[in-house]
Amino acid sequence: MRTLLLFLFVFPLLCVGQKSDSLQIREIYDEVLMHGECHQNLKYLCKKIGARLSGSPQADEAIEWGKQVMEGYGFDSVWLQPVEVPVWIRGDVEEAVVVYRDNVMREQDLSICALGGSIATDGVLTAEVIEVQSLEELAELGREVIEGKIVFYNRPFDEKLINTFRAYGGCVDQRSKGAVEAGFFGAVAVLVRSMTNLHDDHPHTGSMHYNDTITKIPAAAISTEDANTLSLYLQLYDNVSVSMELTCETLESKTQYNVVGDIYGTEYPDEVILVGGHLDSWDKGEGAHDDGAGVVQSIEVLRIFKALNLHPKHTIRAVLFINEENGNMGGKTYADWVHENEITHIAAIESDRGGFTPRGFTIEGSDVEVALIQQMAGLFEPYLLHTFEPGYGGVDISPLNDDGYPVVLMGLVPDSQRYFDYHHSDADVWEAVNERELELGAGAMAALVFLIDKYGLNPAE
Amino acid sequence: MRTLLLFLFVFPLLCVGQKSDSLQIREIYDEVLMHGECHQNLKYLCKKIGARLSGSPQADEAIEWGKQVMEGYGFDSVWLQPVEVPVWIRGDVEEAVVVYRDNVMREQDLSICALGGSIATDGVLTAEVIEVQSLEELAELGREVIEGKIVFYNRPFDEKLINTFRAYGGCVDQRSKGAVEAGFFGAVAVLVRSMTNLHDDHPHTGSMHYNDTITKIPAAAISTEDANTLSLYLQLYDNVSVSMELTCETLESKTQYNVVGDIYGTEYPDEVILVGGHLDSWDKGEGAHDDGAGVVQSIEVLRIFKALNLHPKHTIRAVLFINEENGNMGGKTYADWVHENEITHIAAIESDRGGFTPRGFTIEGSDVEVALIQQMAGLFEPYLLHTFEPGYGGVDISPLNDDGYPVVLMGLVPDSQRYFDYHHSDADVWEAVNERELELGAGAMAALVFLIDKYGLNPAE
Repeated sequence: MRTLLLFLFVFPLLCVGQKSDSLQIREIYDEVLMHGECHQNLKYLCKKIGARLSGSPQADEAIEWGKQVMEGYGFDSVWLQPVEVPVWIRGDVEEAVVVYRDNVMREQDLSICALGGSIATDGVLTAEVIEVQSLEELAELGREVIEGKIVFYNRPFDEKLINTFRAYGGCVDQRSKGAVEAGFFGAVAVLVRSMTNLHDDHPHTGSMHYNDTITKIPAAAISTEDANTLSLYLQLYDNVSVSMELTCETLESKTQYNVVGDIYGTEYPDEVILVGGHLDSWDKGEGAHDDGAGVVQSIEVLRIFKALNLHPKHTIRAVLFINEENGNMGGKTYADWVHENEITHIAAIESDRGGFTPRGFTIEGSDVEVALIQQMAGLFEPYLLHTFEPGYGGVDISPLNDDGYPVVLMGLVPDSQRYFDYHHSDADVWEAVNERELELGAGAMAALVFLIDKYGLNPAE
Repeated sequence: MRTLLLFLFVFPLLCVGQKSDSLQIREIYDEVLMHGECHQNLKYLCKKIGARLSGSPQADEAIEWGKQVMEGYGFDSVWLQPVEVPVWIRGDVEEAVVVYRDNVMREQDLSICALGGSIATDGVLTAEVIEVQSLEELAELGREVIEGKIVFYNRPFDEKLINTFRAYGGCVDQRSKGAVEAGFFGAVAVLVRSMTNLHDDHPHTGSMHYNDTITKIPAAAISTEDANTLSLYLQLYDNVSVSMELTCETLESKTQYNVVGDIYGTEYPDEVILVGGHLDSWDKGEGAHDDGAGVVQSIEVLRIFKALNLHPKHTIRAVLFINEENGNMGGKTYADWVHENEITHIAAIESDRGGFTPRGFTIEGSDVEVALIQQMAGLFEPYLLHTFEPGYGGVDISPLNDDGYPVVLMGLVPDSQRYFDYHHSDADVWEAVNERELELGAGAMAALVFLIDKYGLNPAE
């Protein structure tokens, strides 16, 4: 079937203009590698503004910055889309000590941080700790064992998985659902092993959620090194307890903004090709790879079009989404607006997997659409992109095709090996982003936008 | 022709055992990702021994370390092969200042270091500076302009090249031949822009050579930031001069060693499949990517075979070569011994392009041999290796096929974007090597060795 479609629709696609396409793509890469501005833009975002959790003053600053940068490039239109975002703040105190009896009573600090959305403890909370490897193990132990304890989720990344996002996907239920599940069995708090391949000494935060029908309990990430230590003590000693304190809280939601920049299409100004990343970050590090990289790459795509005097047929739009990390209200608000106003989107390309050497794109669309994109893959081989496979587009753009697949969604796929070294932690700083790797990602996105704008994604055309 | 050969010889190759091969390769990767020891071995080499230029006491230590590590793993034989190596030492002083007249006379320090093999200056050398972009420009200017001056080679990397090794190859003649060519026209010294994509503030050293018929002049690398500064001053001011001092010197050559570890073949113990890297490094940083990575990966290949209880048909050999950086006497000595004793080598695989995510292998062999290796490429796709192309094997193994192509040479191809950020500079330290990226390279090498051992590279077999 795939083969038939290829011959019917797709094969002729790239017989047209392939030589000129490869020359145009070469120009796009030359521009970004020689004159790219995304790495310097990222420096400002990271160093002058820094971490920018939704609702924070830093997020306000980042919104203003994004607008000014795109206006400075002279895009045809730069505008703000109001988004109601949740506001959660970490508070001043997040501390934990493990208490165990060797010959005498001993204490040792643990490196923890609240998970995003967690409630505070009521002063210092002290309880015995029980380690589990999974939600299933927790359920098997049941209320009799769990009640009154701090549940310590300690299932590590599966190192065997080549794509580290798959390892993350195999562990993250502990972080997102751990508090609800443990609360159901009467636990008083949860500690969750940080979501990283590394053995490092800082905790990696991230989102978690509660359920209105189950008592809310505090939830914190613990560094992988201290998770290993805690696990060891639990093997060596009886009655290991942890005392912990968190002062985080959820405030009133407030209005922030998606920042949208457009270059109008010359033939189909009402039809949009979207590139995007998210402007908010967790309140650790500088949000460099997650997702400062995607933000500056998305802006860079439009800058490249301007610099090369390319006039796209369709409107090319960069969206700097707000609130990806803890609610995705930016993505949802944008999609609601698109659906209400029936604004045609040809494709949406998201960059939110770090600013590393690009390896290709995942494609969320029909078989025909995937085949059409795959026919373009050969043009990316000189740039060492080889992955053009069906797969998830990204969190921000995902609501766009809530009604099926009216929009082809794509996600930039960078090399994944180092991503979780930095993810949601103090290590995610500008210095961790290599200039050329970041630029190559922007070049790949711009080249794909160029091809989609030129050929469309409709085999009947 | 290639197609014909494929059908005649190659196609049947991987019809045999492909399922079991993919399972075996998966086991190899599981072993290295779960229980890999190369990153910890690299830590010792970098942190306990450090930089280890040929002839230095640290190189002696590294040789002893390599022998002990391989003996500790219980390889069938670990032995030392004597190699006569040149001894060059940097000396205590390497300083430079640029002197220019603004309104008053001004001085500014320049960050330089001697190129490996350079002679010293005779005290402080002061001369006017002339900037050139190439050896050709130098020749056009000729003796009249060049005589008595310091020649400043300032051609930067071509950022447009996706493979940074090609950018390096396009510039390195300035470093290797710059002193000879400038000396020919009567220059008194050369400063060479550091071989890196980065704008950083430390100089990157590397080898240079003299010619017995041309007066030797001192040669130093200058950091890219200071190269830009110097170039700016040369545009702004007349009579810009540099005062520089180097106290490096060449001593008597001495004996050091290639370190060789073997796992004997069960069927063809006299036929060797070689993996290797070089044990020596420049005397900057810790020689982590260049080439501690290749050394520990080569050892790891044999360790994996032991750990998985794999008994290769051919002898599998790790060679830790000495003196790759400034003479390649290790590679030459090994090849001479192989040629003299007519020791069959099925293939040699070198890792000397950094410990980054592997992208594939370059292959130096006949068309048929290249095609045979390319038939294996599909087995590497799950590990995201896509490059299996004709290309250079590596400096250490290169002398093995001085008589044509009796040995198939292959080079591991890691992602190249960051390599020259570290190369030959203080930045090349253990912390710059990601554990998983390093391990994936070792896994790729081990998998390739497994396949070559199983199927051979002889289409007539």
